[in-house]
Amino acid sequence: MKFLDARSSEIEALEAFGIKSMAVEYYQVPLAEPLVDASHGTHTFFELIVCRITGENGVEGVGYTYTGGSGGHAIYSVIADDLKPRILGKNGADIEDVWQSMQKDLHYVGRGGILSFAISAIDIALWDIRCKSLNLPLWQVLNAPSNATACYAGFIDLHLGGDELQQLVKKHMAMGQTAVKTKVGRENIAEDVERVAAIREVLGDDNALMVDANWSYTKERAIEFSNSVSKYNISWFEEPVSPDEFEDYAAIAEATDIPLAMGENLHLVEEFERAIKYSDLAYLQPDCSNIGGITGFLKVAELADKAGLKICSHGMHELHVSLLAALPHSGMLEVHSFPIDQYTISPLKIRDGQAFAPDHNGVGVIFDEAKLSPHLKMQS
Amino acid sequence: MKFLDARSSEIEALEAFGIKSMAVEYYQVPLAEPLVDASHGTHTFFELIVCRITGENGVEGVGYTYTGGSGGHAIYSVIADDLKPRILGKNGADIEDVWQSMQKDLHYVGRGGILSFAISAIDIALWDIRCKSLNLPLWQVLNAPSNATACYAGFIDLHLGGDELQQLVKKHMAMGQTAVKTKVGRENIAEDVERVAAIREVLGDDNALMVDANWSYTKERAIEFSNSVSKYNISWFEEPVSPDEFEDYAAIAEATDIPLAMGENLHLVEEFERAIKYSDLAYLQPDCSNIGGITGFLKVAELADKAGLKICSHGMHELHVSLLAALPHSGMLEVHSFPIDQYTISPLKIRDGQAFAPDHNGVGVIFDEAKLSPHLKMQS
Repeated sequence: MKFLDARSSEIEALEAFGIKSMAVEYYQVPLAEPLVDASHGTHTFFELIVCRITGENGVEGVGYTYTGGSGGHAIYSVIADDLKPRILGKNGADIEDVWQSMQKDLHYVGRGGILSFAISAIDIALWDIRCKSLNLPLWQVLNAPSNATACYAGFIDLHLGGDELQQLVKKHMAMGQTAVKTKVGRENIAEDVERVAAIREVLGDDNALMVDANWSYTKERAIEFSNSVSKYNISWFEEPVSPDEFEDYAAIAEATDIPLAMGENLHLVEEFERAIKYSDLAYLQPDCSNIGGITGFLKVAELADKAGLKICSHGMHELHVSLLAALPHSGMLEVHSFPIDQYTISPLKIRDGQAFAPDHNGVGVIFDEAKLSPHLKMQS
Repeated sequence: MKFLDARSSEIEALEAFGIKSMAVEYYQVPLAEPLVDASHGTHTFFELIVCRITGENGVEGVGYTYTGGSGGHAIYSVIADDLKPRILGKNGADIEDVWQSMQKDLHYVGRGGILSFAISAIDIALWDIRCKSLNLPLWQVLNAPSNATACYAGFIDLHLGGDELQQLVKKHMAMGQTAVKTKVGRENIAEDVERVAAIREVLGDDNALMVDANWSYTKERAIEFSNSVSKYNISWFEEPVSPDEFEDYAAIAEATDIPLAMGENLHLVEEFERAIKYSDLAYLQPDCSNIGGITGFLKVAELADKAGLKICSHGMHELHVSLLAALPHSGMLEVHSFPIDQYTISPLKIRDGQAFAPDHNGVGVIFDEAKLSPHLKMQS
């Protein structure tokens, strides 16, 4: 795997170990206030599914995935009922082999979807063991020049009016952000344009501003909107239309000036391959929690590299920060509105538009049990 | 929806009703003997998830889905935990609306996969209510000229040698079958060719013979195999390579004479759209249990009709028999090796290569509780 080249001999030198045990936990974590986008409605909590793997070598790895509020029980079930019995005893040092076997064994109910979320949690736990075995944080395993990467605040803010948006932007700028992404997809394009204008006004001309329609537009509407906001210097337009309509993305790219981005809804590496081929994207936004973990993310990063595209991220910034710090073709880290990092011992540090990966050996995400345990609903 | 045109005014005249309650059951049904294919290994049981919906109109509909042994707990969970609370109270007469809302509400963990299986069970239950409300069996709701359709025996037989295969073919011909499909994907192409030859020998020259690699071949190997068996008059080559490699299908079609088929692993209508566009298929094989039920199946049937392709089926023959009897562009019904129909009050009737849809009002699948209940593992 290309981005592991610098450490490949050290990784290969790690001893094989059997996967000895696995514990799975399901949490519902309330949000401080409701968050709204154009396709998923109102979020009041997120689901967090944590997977703890212990190797015969005595090292414990922690992986996880999350959802906006639906499907988490099923993800928990796939991990506990279907994947756990299949991977116990397998060599946890050969992550690629475990990953491929999970994909293959459950292929009939898979090809993405809920299976990809489940595989992701296990894959991240195995990477945690790998990094701990190397006594290195993830960003150093990936040979990052530093632990810093450019970031932006990803708002889920479709319910907010212009004044509230401006307050939100100011609040995040005071916290160290310089770039933001806002939701669009209100009833009238004029409202969407006004909201963009309100944000640009307080953000200033030099800071990056992105928009995200959560596939609520038609192709025609996306083109109309895009042309209506071209003077606001939008860095990317995310998910204008359904992630299934690859060719519509290309048509929008052809008819407008704003670069296109997508990825949070593509849960198979092969889907990214096809999106690159048919959609004329500028930015890929995989999410480790649903693309098959760090293994899936790095496969997409390789595709992006080959195609000359920037790799960004969606969600779980507390983990992606280590990946984007390491990837030479990284775009910007999304600091997502689901504050998973607030339930870890190292909430994300942001300064002057940069985010900084933690120094803990492992993937860098260590849950704060005192904060998280009140939200535990199921475990096995 | 095109294939409903003849009954559309009767369907529209049905009164709206709220979905009042839903019960969900999970069964593990043992197979009489282990079944083997090239990608899913050995099957010893199948999972059956049954969904019983009662409308405020007092009509009960029964839907179901199945798997080859994995993911069933998660499907059960999506239905019981995520979909049930969302659809209770919705108008069950507007199936399209319920279907679209299930797809949209769980889109983030969806776009196919386990979600599609869950949606399928609910959709079939609503169709059962629709047909019962019309006092008609499904095949008559779809205006079928008769209840008969051509069928074939779909073997899961990769573990069998030539003599055993010949016995299997003879047994099924004695039961009324004239056409069969065999698995390929053994270690050497020569073995696969020998097995095809053994079957053709007992099947005779005039009966249809199909092969299915369960995506175990590479493109090159698929071409080599296809050219090696061209003298055996193969009606279609099913899933030579991964269902993600649409363009490889087209390359195989270009280089060989045997028509291509796939569908059991495509769980979104949009995937069929793309497969039609890029794969040069001759036969589409959706499965009501994982393409979003009868609603999803009929959407794929419309795509096939527009593209001039034949529509076949995968699995759950006890239900598909009613659909293929009705569709003017139907190919052949797969009589699948998972004998779900043996757990209903109307096991499939086969005579002279034809299968016959049952006359019960509804979708025609009425489970035999005495046979099924010993295999119940969970219910809610």
